[in-house]
Amino acid sequence: METVSSAKSFGGEQAVLRHASEVTGTDMTFSVFVPDHEEGAKLPVVWYLSGLTCTHANVTEKGDFRRACAELGLIFVAPDTSPRGEGVADDPEGAYDFGLGAGFYVDATEDPFAQHYRMWSYVTEELSEIIGDCFPADLTRQSIMGHSMGGHGALTIGLTHAERFRAVSAFAPIVAPSQVPWGVKALTGYLGEDRAAWRKHDAVALIEDGARVPALLVDQGDADSFLAEQLKPQLLAEACDKAGIDLTLRMQPGYDHSYYFISTFMEDHLRWHAARLKG
Amino acid sequence: METVSSAKSFGGEQAVLRHASEVTGTDMTFSVFVPDHEEGAKLPVVWYLSGLTCTHANVTEKGDFRRACAELGLIFVAPDTSPRGEGVADDPEGAYDFGLGAGFYVDATEDPFAQHYRMWSYVTEELSEIIGDCFPADLTRQSIMGHSMGGHGALTIGLTHAERFRAVSAFAPIVAPSQVPWGVKALTGYLGEDRAAWRKHDAVALIEDGARVPALLVDQGDADSFLAEQLKPQLLAEACDKAGIDLTLRMQPGYDHSYYFISTFMEDHLRWHAARLKG
Repeated sequence: METVSSAKSFGGEQAVLRHASEVTGTDMTFSVFVPDHEEGAKLPVVWYLSGLTCTHANVTEKGDFRRACAELGLIFVAPDTSPRGEGVADDPEGAYDFGLGAGFYVDATEDPFAQHYRMWSYVTEELSEIIGDCFPADLTRQSIMGHSMGGHGALTIGLTHAERFRAVSAFAPIVAPSQVPWGVKALTGYLGEDRAAWRKHDAVALIEDGARVPALLVDQGDADSFLAEQLKPQLLAEACDKAGIDLTLRMQPGYDHSYYFISTFMEDHLRWHAARLKG
Repeated sequence: METVSSAKSFGGEQAVLRHASEVTGTDMTFSVFVPDHEEGAKLPVVWYLSGLTCTHANVTEKGDFRRACAELGLIFVAPDTSPRGEGVADDPEGAYDFGLGAGFYVDATEDPFAQHYRMWSYVTEELSEIIGDCFPADLTRQSIMGHSMGGHGALTIGLTHAERFRAVSAFAPIVAPSQVPWGVKALTGYLGEDRAAWRKHDAVALIEDGARVPALLVDQGDADSFLAEQLKPQLLAEACDKAGIDLTLRMQPGYDHSYYFISTFMEDHLRWHAARLKG
């Protein structure tokens, strides 16, 4: 493991690290904030999955999470959004919504993506193990959140591993990728034409198929230019309603899709997570 | 005035704007955060001057100032650090510490910089007027802070216009540019060899020459790699001590020169400013 950078912040340590991933077959970079803590203490872990075009850096620089994490005693982990490097396939036209920066948190089965695009296993297995081994993390107390494509990742991973993640929340998530252009393109490209294989990577379909969590928190700006075509939070609301999942969906007037929106509600989400991680 | 971007954040509006500056003879870009406020209300203004290599964007994205500004009702203005554009002279070798991104908040008198490098007048006159004219700003309640080269700018502007700025603070400022390599290079390049002309752009010299403010707040990381050679806060401490200026100089253990440091103490500074702006 290579330390790319490390700086004291809000009394804790914000590090960026790089390692050779066995799962993706590439180097992977991620960031971790570890609050100040007593020697020997183990802290709960909040995972944050980022959106299209992002790396670990966007939330690390713009997410305004450190003050609250320091106060609440939460480790904050931000993985990259795809494998990167020489030999990693990309969108044939270099589009922003597929390939590099757009792994969609799946294990691809389609060539040429199957070789490196294994973000599901990377996040849920390899990086989880690293966090447990290398940081003062209490892996019995984990939660997950994300933004947009990363909100999709947080919802699907949280619904699939409900025993592992005590809290699941999202900012402007893609809730039903099978039903929107971004998702149809990505799931076709990574998983092929058979829509049956898509269902475990679609939060609404997962709920329809029986996946359950006690509660979800979603914030969505009503001035988000992707709201009507790509995000469609009402589909999640309907699915949760039918399934009896306690969804708090907050439409935030005037907010867009940017980190100016995310940072505004980050503290709320972290307090909601902390209440469930420490309860 | 052109709106480059605008987004709702923490209930207020974070805008980035561009205008043709008469003072610099170039387009200039700056950012302004205006908190939510009652119609017709006029809010105090906090100026933030950035360091070497920065634009308005660094603090706007990484400064963690919006939550506190929204709570305290403070407008937050972040200018660029130099003129930019075609025909603007730069360091002959393209160095980071002179020319573009390194205006040092002076009105240059040396060719070829005198034509566009007029950041002192830009900040204290032209942009001040724009803020008063275009935003719900109460110009009788202003304060100023900055980082590194921008800390130098905040101290020199604050000491020179003590009647205008009710609070002056800095993160890791260059306190005595005449006595450190960054400053000697910049002041020679912009103002020429005659050191008498430098004194009004050197906080320690200004204090020696009689400039006074009631109080100063400075945070300085002790792991800052520029501390010993470029920053030398003890020179400010000595000058304030002799002059009877109430300097609070906090050496922050383990902190470096980055926004991870600045963001940690931003709220403290804003509360310190707010107490003086509203008192």
